[in-house]
Amino acid sequence: MNLSHIEHIGIAVKSLQDAIPFYENVLGLKCYNIEEVVEQKVKTAFFMLGQTKIELLEPTSPESPVAKFIEKRGEGVHHVAFAAQGLQASLDELAGKGVQLLDKNPRKGAEGLNIAFLHPKSTLGVLMELCEK
Amino acid sequence: MNLSHIEHIGIAVKSLQDAIPFYENVLGLKCYNIEEVVEQKVKTAFFMLGQTKIELLEPTSPESPVAKFIEKRGEGVHHVAFAAQGLQASLDELAGKGVQLLDKNPRKGAEGLNIAFLHPKSTLGVLMELCEK
Repeated sequence: MNLSHIEHIGIAVKSLQDAIPFYENVLGLKCYNIEEVVEQKVKTAFFMLGQTKIELLEPTSPESPVAKFIEKRGEGVHHVAFAAQGLQASLDELAGKGVQLLDKNPRKGAEGLNIAFLHPKSTLGVLMELCEK
Repeated sequence: MNLSHIEHIGIAVKSLQDAIPFYENVLGLKCYNIEEVVEQKVKTAFFMLGQTKIELLEPTSPESPVAKFIEKRGEGVHHVAFAAQGLQASLDELAGKGVQLLDKNPRKGAEGLNIAFLHPKSTLGVLMELCEK
């Protein structure tokens, strides 16, 4: 397992229109990309802060996993994503160590990254994502 | 407001003894410091990943805010901390913009940092911390 840095933090919000001005005008960050991830039923907004992106996630449907997260827990941190070198090998290694994978093989995520999620039951309550360019 | 990077991510866990082996043996990180923060009634374990620390937080008392967090929401991401240059000026600026501060003035946190927390009601559900060396 070779993790180099925290690639992004995913934060569930009800409305990008409300959230982006907070991150820009209050925290002083700059939204550099807005992208819809149809498969996950979310619209995402990206901010860069050092090595790490903040990825705001607004559900585009009540069936979106992010909509269900907000319904259950309110807005807040949804997942933490690590940059992994050798994504498939990392997933195989994790599976071999008994970690439950939500994606056994990498799939395409926002910004063209290859991504895979780990089940929070296997990671002490944190929904973790591994990603690779 | 001048934020340079994500200083750390605080993660609430029931037991450092159970959590540290996951971060070390499964994720391949190295715990470089364990420290008790008496005021916050937590024991903390630190891992470095790129620019950002992962700070595991184990409550040392049922009255710890982290114990209450775990009771309500389970283990998971507790807060996100940004490195801020000019902490007092940043807090004054935030207060002027209507952000509710949990600490109006910096106080001492783990690893000798000056820290202050923002109320999650003002920050779209994320408990945010600003910190400065």
